[in-house]
Amino acid sequence: MASMFDPQDPQYDARVRETFAAQRIMLTFGARLVRVAPGETDIELPYREDLGQQDGFLHAGVITTVVDSACGSAALSLMPAGARVLSIEFKVNLLSPAKGKLFVARGRVVKPGKNITVCTGDFVTQDGTKLLAIMVATMMCVR
Amino acid sequence: MASMFDPQDPQYDARVRETFAAQRIMLTFGARLVRVAPGETDIELPYREDLGQQDGFLHAGVITTVVDSACGSAALSLMPAGARVLSIEFKVNLLSPAKGKLFVARGRVVKPGKNITVCTGDFVTQDGTKLLAIMVATMMCVR
Amino acid sequence: MASMFDPQDPQYDARVRETFAAQRIMLTFGARLVRVAPGETDIELPYREDLGQQDGFLHAGVITTVVDSACGSAALSLMPAGARVLSIEFKVNLLSPAKGKLFVARGRVVKPGKNITVCTGDFVTQDGTKLLAIMVATMMCVR
Amino acid sequence: MASMFDPQDPQYDARVRETFAAQRIMLTFGARLVRVAPGETDIELPYREDLGQQDGFLHAGVITTVVDSACGSAALSLMPAGARVLSIEFKVNLLSPAKGKLFVARGRVVKPGKNITVCTGDFVTQDGTKLLAIMVATMMCVR
Repeated sequence: MASMFDPQDPQYDARVRETFAAQRIMLTFGARLVRVAPGETDIELPYREDLGQQDGFLHAGVITTVVDSACGSAALSLMPAGARVLSIEFKVNLLSPAKGKLFVARGRVVKPGKNITVCTGDFVTQDGTKLLAIMVATMMCVR
Repeated sequence: MASMFDPQDPQYDARVRETFAAQRIMLTFGARLVRVAPGETDIELPYREDLGQQDGFLHAGVITTVVDSACGSAALSLMPAGARVLSIEFKVNLLSPAKGKLFVARGRVVKPGKNITVCTGDFVTQDGTKLLAIMVATMMCVR
Repeated sequence: MASMFDPQDPQYDARVRETFAAQRIMLTFGARLVRVAPGETDIELPYREDLGQQDGFLHAGVITTVVDSACGSAALSLMPAGARVLSIEFKVNLLSPAKGKLFVARGRVVKPGKNITVCTGDFVTQDGTKLLAIMVATMMCVR
Repeated sequence: MASMFDPQDPQYDARVRETFAAQRIMLTFGARLVRVAPGETDIELPYREDLGQQDGFLHAGVITTVVDSACGSAALSLMPAGARVLSIEFKVNLLSPAKGKLFVARGRVVKPGKNITVCTGDFVTQDGTKLLAIMVATMMCVR
């Protein structure tokens, strides 16, 4: 499916992947950026016990971390060359316990803007059948 | 300063500490529960490079993880014996980059309830002089 | 398009319309419930100057009021007979100034639950071409 | 109590009052701006039946409207002369039904900024004894 958005920076893919690679927490978690398109990214996260809360499911904050990175990466893909992205704020609703072996965080731009970009994100089981969490995030473009 | 709330479970302190200790992600991050009072908890987090985002500051999701745990612990401290706490949703505003050596996440109950407890949380530098992030969280009591 | 959800109460349509009619603020605003389906409702709001903010656009709080009612109505449509719905919390992102003659607020259930139902909502121009605001809302079922 | 913030515009008080007066919805609701200080405003709202939800309490959206205006006014009080304020997003938690004759919405700046100002707000009974709702809001300065 084609993206709704035109990237300003033809090198957007490389730039998003580079920024992702510089996020040490993604390495710490074992998260992988598996898809980049204009205004859209997917990050995979395999389950690990050491990312869990008290019942062994993924901690809500771990989910948030990965979905926030997906949203930030999606926003960054539409920003001009040289710009950086910062999360101003986000809200997350946890819908179901994150049980499973492999998860996907999907970030999507809803409204790009010169200064402010609004994204939605979600966190699903790898086959996409179960919606575990949703996010709305406000991102800022820093030049 | 005395807490505004009376705990229902006289063993609240032990129960909150036990639940915290069962959250594997807290160990992964090196976070320590340093204070428990009725409706209030503080968690310390030393800076580590491997918890960083692309500029080396703590990732917004790491901050969220720790403040969410502080809020959940605060909510749990007022719940009856045997109850568990679940985060339904939270919102975080990131106010300043998390630069520093040692941080504190503070969770406070604003409105306890039989089913739903609302908390506010923040994330500050260890000396309390700089406010880095604020959270509002909705917690559910599961019996 | 068929709804994804089965209503528990066969009289859901009448019950949602009755509750809507009892919301005096909807009458005050001139808002009309124009569609009810299981887990989905649409509310129309004609522009009026006396609902405006300082630039003459609809006030963010007016938008919120109508989208919250759409989300609450959507949640209520899936609740059992005799239940009432309460908004626990919501978050709204304002994407564009609400200019126009006629607007639609759409409420959709994302995750129904015995106690907690999570909805998303939006506010669009009447032809559906312009997205003006988005909401995520947490609703409680009160028996 | 002295405010924590220094206004950039010595005419901040008149400017905030003027912008408030231009918000037609405030007149529609019968809301009054009763206090302006640098980074802080209070708005009073008398109860009226025609602002109610289905149980006769103030509608969550009405509460939101007034607290959003209090937060926006607080943010505006710290902005330079000629600037306008826009709500980017807010989150509201409803803590108790809004029963009473007179309410106060209080907006407070938490973090002022050149482009983005973060505020917290609340909605209380007029004597300040009962906390009915809390808000976190992100405001933008438009020049």
